Parts: sequence; structure tokens; C-alpha cells
Amino acid sequence: MNSGHLDDLFSFIRFPSVSTEPRHAGDVAKCAEWLVQKLTAIGLKAELHATGGHPIVTARNEHKPGRRTVMIYGHYDVQPVEPLAEWTTPPFEPVVRDGIIYARGSTDNKGQILAHVLGVGETLRENGELPVNLIFLIEGEEEVGSKHLADFLAANRDALRCDLIAISDTGMIAPRTPTFTYGLRGITAMEVRVHGPSIDLHSGIYGGTVANPATAIARLVATLHDAHGRVAVAGFYDDVIPLQQWERDAWAKLPFGETEILTVTGAAETFGEEGYTSLERAWARPTAEVNGIGGGFQGTGSKTVIPRVAFVKLTFRLVPGQRPEDILAKVRAHLEAHCPPGVRLEIEDGHSGDPYLTDPHSAFGKAAQRALAASFPGRDLALIREGGSIPIVNTFRTILGVETLLLGLALPDCRAHAPDENFPVENFEAGIRLNKALLEELARG
Amino acid sequence: MNSGHLDDLFSFIRFPSVSTEPRHAGDVAKCAEWLVQKLTAIGLKAELHATGGHPIVTARNEHKPGRRTVMIYGHYDVQPVEPLAEWTTPPFEPVVRDGIIYARGSTDNKGQILAHVLGVGETLRENGELPVNLIFLIEGEEEVGSKHLADFLAANRDALRCDLIAISDTGMIAPRTPTFTYGLRGITAMEVRVHGPSIDLHSGIYGGTVANPATAIARLVATLHDAHGRVAVAGFYDDVIPLQQWERDAWAKLPFGETEILTVTGAAETFGEEGYTSLERAWARPTAEVNGIGGGFQGTGSKTVIPRVAFVKLTFRLVPGQRPEDILAKVRAHLEAHCPPGVRLEIEDGHSGDPYLTDPHSAFGKAAQRALAASFPGRDLALIREGGSIPIVNTFRTILGVETLLLGLALPDCRAHAPDENFPVENFEAGIRLNKALLEELARG
Repeated sequence: MNSGHLDDLFSFIRFPSVSTEPRHAGDVAKCAEWLVQKLTAIGLKAELHATGGHPIVTARNEHKPGRRTVMIYGHYDVQPVEPLAEWTTPPFEPVVRDGIIYARGSTDNKGQILAHVLGVGETLRENGELPVNLIFLIEGEEEVGSKHLADFLAANRDALRCDLIAISDTGMIAPRTPTFTYGLRGITAMEVRVHGPSIDLHSGIYGGTVANPATAIARLVATLHDAHGRVAVAGFYDDVIPLQQWERDAWAKLPFGETEILTVTGAAETFGEEGYTSLERAWARPTAEVNGIGGGFQGTGSKTVIPRVAFVKLTFRLVPGQRPEDILAKVRAHLEAHCPPGVRLEIEDGHSGDPYLTDPHSAFGKAAQRALAASFPGRDLALIREGGSIPIVNTFRTILGVETLLLGLALPDCRAHAPDENFPVENFEAGIRLNKALLEELARG
Repeated sequence: MNSGHLDDLFSFIRFPSVSTEPRHAGDVAKCAEWLVQKLTAIGLKAELHATGGHPIVTARNEHKPGRRTVMIYGHYDVQPVEPLAEWTTPPFEPVVRDGIIYARGSTDNKGQILAHVLGVGETLRENGELPVNLIFLIEGEEEVGSKHLADFLAANRDALRCDLIAISDTGMIAPRTPTFTYGLRGITAMEVRVHGPSIDLHSGIYGGTVANPATAIARLVATLHDAHGRVAVAGFYDDVIPLQQWERDAWAKLPFGETEILTVTGAAETFGEEGYTSLERAWARPTAEVNGIGGGFQGTGSKTVIPRVAFVKLTFRLVPGQRPEDILAKVRAHLEAHCPPGVRLEIEDGHSGDPYLTDPHSAFGKAAQRALAASFPGRDLALIREGGSIPIVNTFRTILGVETLLLGLALPDCRAHAPDENFPVENFEAGIRLNKALLEELARG
């Protein structure tokens, strides 16, 4: 690898471009300017676009008629670094230990998007041109919900017209295993509050007279699943597109299964809906999860109160076929029907994102898989879905009308969003190779 | 009323004798010294006794053979005042508004115990002597669990030998309604934690693979009751001494029932074990209450995690016949039998206190009721139990071998432990009358 590539990545990482923290707004802006300079230096026409929040960076080569137009999306903003004390070395002072780069943003997403930028730079230096019409779209608000991206896409629909989009912001199933992600779960969120007495009551004086909201919220949550981990909301599974047999066969052969899940999670055993493996449950089956539950005394020791209110924060991971608004309506009906006596129910809908499924056997999908295989030679390619949600892929489909290829370079233990986030140098190098191979394959495929 | 009496109470209240806060230790000590001076001034022999914590104050008249010995117990320490912003006037600057004294400690317990002190003072001034051998025992650690009281009782068993104990630290069923409390519930506490993964997991990536501890704690809590509010722990009710018919009849006639409970609690409806009124459930039926439940994200908005741990803080209010250690064992067996799959259960026992029941128809009980009736003339006396726990009454029974008469002067809306704690001037005056009548009746009864 060109030794300047790692210097470039370290320069990119050193900007503490934490998009959610107002005190870092200047750092986010400087990071975007650095990126514009880098994209210009490799021979692209780069632009900085102001938004209502952090700027969006675009870059393009000279587009020629008759060629595929490929958009590569990424983001230059990063997550906060807290808890800072848990970092082995400072998050914005990148270091390499045993071949692994440690820094905030190393995997998510600076390492991955810069690999694409540097791959394009190498191709331009070697060949003088790219085999495709290329658009880089690199935003600064991915970690805060891409607040201004949809408006930007809609306002620049013509300039951003393309045949497909590629993103490296997902995971690899295992080290050196080329991984193509063709499906994502959607999400819908809901906060439920159960109200009882008007003030916290003394549980000695009043215990037994009125319903306890903390007990009621627990009883309500307990109705969401049956004893075997299946969601018990009527109609919840009605529209689920079933797993196909080839998927089950392929996933069963992956070098990541029950044992690896226990290692990564630290759980004593796996658990979930009967009749499915853990990977099948995580990637292709919907869930109802409690992300937070609370009510009454939270401190050390005891305080003998009947709390006046208790809450639960729920998210439902959705799979292809399910629609957030339909699931919210079904869950709401379930909660209203099962609310215990003596309390008042309050339901507040939260954010939603549709599930995503693209055909891995399409021409573009196969081209991307060839590029991936070439970047990690000698290893079987993994065709997977992921359990998480990436709302922008649906935004791209809706506004630009194109599919997205997910070519992730993140390892299972990359610690994205956590202390000691890391990215192997070899993945960074593979990302540069991937970009070169991808543009060639997409030009042909 | 002697106008000096209210001045005395205001002086007593102005000491911020908050026993739980180390910064107020000096105020607690000064309050105890003021009390010693007051008890001396009315003609008693008063003493300050150092303990490992806050001092205990005792006082006595000259004891004569052949007379009843009556101990009056109270406390001069108070609860913290937070949330301070919710007080209409500063908590340690007592004021009278519409005949009601507002201040921390006005009801609990300075107003009530000082009424007894001033009653004794009046009798001594009027008669030169008391009809009984009297012992005042006034501690400074009631609000922090009377940590040093049992040791003090054991070490001074001879000096504290008495025929019975009277306490004014319980409630009146309604304004101007003389109220005699002959039973209290006991308590036993338990904290239950459910452990899952070793770290909080991303609920998109891992949702569906492992059990969610927040879901599991909810499912576990939901097993504690049946749908009709009855505790579903095997054997929970085995040793409960049933309510007697005269109690049910008497309580049904009290000027405090379902309507008043809704008003005081602000709940939309009453709820609990079928087959009992709310008063019966609060006073004579055991409960399982969630005092706190928590796990996962507690902030505003959403954070998509599967929490690594979730907890519930439980207390069980016990009624005569039930024993804390027996209930803890039964609940532990229930929780272990009902723990959902995929998680690890951790149970930590908390504090306990036995229930209390004394015979309201004993000679002393009847004497006390005559005194109460004389202090609130023209009103029917209420014979009640209370739902709360007063562990010291069992300590007195165990160490000193005597019964305790509970002659409360606190009104349902006295806001003890809360902002705007208050005590009607008329209850203060009634307390002084009560003391004089009580000593006379007990001397005879």
C-alpha cells in the first residue's frame, strides 16, 4: 500500500467530527473542507454544499454518455467518544497496534469511505480515467439521522441521477470473508407510559388499594411474547416474507453461528423465536425488544413507594413485507386490549424505517460480488442480511429510484460507536482494492 | 391554648434536625439539647444519651411504687426537605395559614411528641405531680431506621422498665376523628436482578439472538400476581390470620373509604385482591409491590439497546401470622421456578420488619380509647389498623416485653415526608389534651 494512504486516513480521523455535539461544529466543517481538498487533489470536481446542519460533500469525474453512473455514499461524521476513560489511546489520535488502527471513525465510516476515495485516486493516477461516471456523496449527519439528506437528494435529483449506489458501512461476517449484504431490517419505535396515582404513594399506607404502574407495565410487557420467544401481537407476522431455503442453507454454512454469537454477546445461551437459528432470527425475523424500562425508585437500597408512572421504550425490528405504520397500529391495539385494570395507558409513536431487500442475484449484485471476491481472494463470499436498519437505502430507493449495494468492511469486533473502535490495516487496503475492482465490474456488469 | 405552646413548637421545628444528612449532625445535636432543656423546664429529670449516631433523650418524673409506669416514645429527627422548590414557605420557618402549621416535622413527629411534653408540663404545673410514673424516650434516628435504639433499650432495660408504651406517630382516619391503631403491617424487601449479555447490545444487530433482560424481568414480575390482584406465590397466604367480622363491620362504617382513597391518591379507580375493600386490603391483607423497576435506556428519546441487566425492587407488606423469612423463602422459590430462559437470576434480600397486632379490647387499650374520645369530644372513635410498618413496636415488645398503644394525630393529608408537611393547630391542642387524659385513664385503667 502507498504509505501516504495511512497518513491520509490519520489526517481524516484527527478531525473530531462529532456531528451531535454543537461544540464540534467547527471540527465537522473543517473535516468536510479537508475532504473536498482530498477529492480535488485526486482529480475529481468536488463541492461543499451547505445544509440546515452539517455540509454535504459531493465529487464527480467528468461524466460521459453511455457509461454506468455509480454513486458511492459515505459519511465523515462520527459518534461521540464517551466513555472517554475506556479508550486505551485517545480516540482522535489514531495509532496502529498489531496491524489494527484504533480511533473513533476508523471503521465507521472514515476508514471505509476513504478507501473508496483512495481507490478512485489510484485508478485515476494509473489510467487517467474511471470506467464509470462516478458520484461521491459524503454527508456529515449520518450519526444524527441524516436529517438534511432527503431534502438534498430531492433538490438535486438530476445532478445525482445514477444507476446504482454502493455503500461500505455494513459488516463482514468474519475476518477476510468478503460479505455482500442484500437485506436489512426496518424499525419502528414506541414509548408506552402507564399512569396510576397522581403522586408517588407510600407503599405501606396505600399498598393494596390502587394499581401499581410498575407492576402494570411489567404485566403489559409480558403479553408481548409467548413463552417461546414469539411475538404475541395479533397479526404481527401476517405480512412477513418467509425466508427462502437457499438463504437458510447459505447461512447455515457461514463461519458465524450460535457459538460466535455467545462469544460476542457474552450471553449464557441464545434465545428467541422457535424454529429458527439465531442468524435467521437476527436477519430475517421481526422482533419486539424492550430498550428501556423504568419506574419508581432507581437508587441504591430501597424506597417504599408505589410510583405514579412507569414507562417502557419499545422497538420492533421489521422484515421485508412488514410496514411500520401497520405494526404500530397492531401493537397499539394489543396494548390497549391487554392494559391491566386501574391504570391509564399513554402511547407515543417514535421513529420508523422500512426494511430493505434487494436481489443479490441481479446483474449489479453479481458484479459487486465478483469485486468483493477479488478483493479477498481465496475466501468464500458470504451472502447475508443484517439485523440493523439503514434508513437511507430506502431514501435512495424512494427519491432516486435506485438500488443500493452494501459492501461492508467492518469486522464483528470493530467496536463502532464504542471505546477502542478499530479497523485492520488489511481491511483498509482491501477497501482500496475493492473500489478499483467494483468500478471495473460495474462498468462491465 | 397557652400562647407559649406554639412558640415552643416553632422553636423545636426551627432546628433542621435531618438525621440522614451528615451536614445537619450539629443541628440534630442542638435540637436534642433544646429538648433536654424543655423537659427539664417543665419539671422532669432529663438526660442526653450519646449513641453511635444521634443522641437519645430521656426524661422522667420521680417514680413512686405502686403506680403504673408509662413510656411515651417519639422522635425529634425529621426527613430531608427535598424537593425544596415545592415548598410554599421554607420548611424550617414554621408559619400558620388558615389554622394549619406548615413546616418539616410539624406532624412527623415534633408536633405530636411536643404535645405530650406540653401536656405533662400543664399537669405538673396544675397538680404538682403526674398520676403515673412517666418515661419520655425521644430518639434522633427514627427516620434512618432507629439504628441505635435496640442496643440502648437492651443496655437500659431496668431503667426503662414500664407497663406499656404510647406513641403518637400514626394517622387519624379523618379530621377530628379520634383514632386508635391496633395493628400494623410488617415488611420484607428483596432486590432482583436479571443478567443477560455481558454488555448492552445493539438491538438491531443482535435483537432476536439472545434473551432481553428487560423483557425477562417484566415476565418475571408478571408472575407475582394473578389477573385479579392476588399474589400468585405458592403458600403466600398460608399463615395469614383472617380478618374478623367485627373489624370488617367497623371499618365499613369509617368516614374513609373508596371515594376518599381516590381523592387522596389521585388514582382513577381502586384495585387489588378480590373480595376485600380497599381499607381491608391496605390494613389486613399482604401485598407484593414493585417499588422500582429499571433496565436499559432511561433518557429522553430512544436508544436501541438490549440491556445487559435489569432489576426490580420488591417489598412485601405482611400481616399478622406471616413471617418475613418465610415469605422471602417462598418468593425466592417462586422467582427461581418462573425465571424466563436465557438469563441469570440474582436475588438480594433486604430489610424486614414483623407485623404487629395488639388487642384493642385490653384494659390499657380501652383506657387509651377513653382518653382519645375525651380529646375529640362528640365524635365516634375509629378502631383501625395501618398499612405501614413501625418496626420499633416489635422491638419494644421483644426487648421490654410490653405492648404499644398507637394514638395518632396525623391527618390523611399531612404530607409527612413531602413538601408542605403540615399539622393543624387544633390537632396540636388536642394532643395536649390527649396526654393529660391518657395519663389519668392509664393510672385508673
